[in-house]
Amino acid sequence: MMKLLSSPASPFVRKVRIAAGMKGLLNQIDVQPADTNKGDDNLNRQNPLGKIPCLITDSGTALYDSPVICEYLDTLAPAPVLFPKAGAERFAALTRGALGDGILDAALLLVYEKRFRPETMQVAGWVERQQSKIARSLDLLANAPPDWDKSADYGHLTLACALGYLDFRHEGKWRAKHPKLVAWLERFAAAVPDFGKTTPVG
Amino acid sequence: MMKLLSSPASPFVRKVRIAAGMKGLLNQIDVQPADTNKGDDNLNRQNPLGKIPCLITDSGTALYDSPVICEYLDTLAPAPVLFPKAGAERFAALTRGALGDGILDAALLLVYEKRFRPETMQVAGWVERQQSKIARSLDLLANAPPDWDKSADYGHLTLACALGYLDFRHEGKWRAKHPKLVAWLERFAAAVPDFGKTTPVG
Repeated sequence: MMKLLSSPASPFVRKVRIAAGMKGLLNQIDVQPADTNKGDDNLNRQNPLGKIPCLITDSGTALYDSPVICEYLDTLAPAPVLFPKAGAERFAALTRGALGDGILDAALLLVYEKRFRPETMQVAGWVERQQSKIARSLDLLANAPPDWDKSADYGHLTLACALGYLDFRHEGKWRAKHPKLVAWLERFAAAVPDFGKTTPVG
Repeated sequence: MMKLLSSPASPFVRKVRIAAGMKGLLNQIDVQPADTNKGDDNLNRQNPLGKIPCLITDSGTALYDSPVICEYLDTLAPAPVLFPKAGAERFAALTRGALGDGILDAALLLVYEKRFRPETMQVAGWVERQQSKIARSLDLLANAPPDWDKSADYGHLTLACALGYLDFRHEGKWRAKHPKLVAWLERFAAAVPDFGKTTPVG
């Protein structure tokens, strides 16, 4: 039985849970809580960065971060293909994943700005820097929402988790400006039931 | 001719330059400056996250972030293999890369804490959080520095760039506590001349 160190609020854990669901692997993974805000000794031993998700494989090896875990899970069952094997298709999916992770990193830094700092010590320039990364990325995506052929891949699921996190922690403000992306996310949710099953809590 | 949007101080750009050097691809890449601190319109158009490195391929496609670019370059020439093709070896290399990138992310957040905030608005708890990620990671690595067989891979080069960045921006304070890692970095530098050729400037 694999172990997934996780929290119900983490968008990066959500990526892994969706990947596991799409590959039919959920019954092989024991999802265990880890707390990145208190020094979590077990997590820190497995991943010294103290970050979730961290997957402990059947052989006891710790794998991270979420792109690595998702690619590993992709090798454990044949379909659907989350990581195209080679060529332009692979690097488009990987870059799409990096874009989704970059939106998440910026959105998380905005959450941390409030969580770790009293209001008088929050810095407008830093907040705007992160907000502009998100805004430019959404503009680009809304201009040409990335479709899929047979099934959504790792890049699509990462983007969906990024939008889901903007709903969860940033009040879904992106929706008013980007109706085409709202429609895209609805198509994704209809195609990938594990998206709806992993709605964040916390 | 590919284009690499870059800066001479970025450790993530350094990863790509080392990978390109190891693969014999430097003469196919035009390294162009980009400034992430001023709104750089060209960079923002290519990568809406406004982050470097960003590689523009011969077909005009923008690829990011550094793991994606390094894996792409790995497909353009046969040797040395930077990304093992499959199995435990591949996921060990990828996790090692994620560890190096995680050290870099924490080290960069420490730099940003000073760059974006006056001293009275810097938060000790946040700084300690990042420092502890780096300290635990170095303890783990020093305990068993990761050797290579025929040649260093993507994971090793990422770890070397992380240590190089701690030298560049954090006064090499890690060296006193970790002589085995110092020796490891010297072995890496001897095996991969492109490491020494990309010493950061800025």
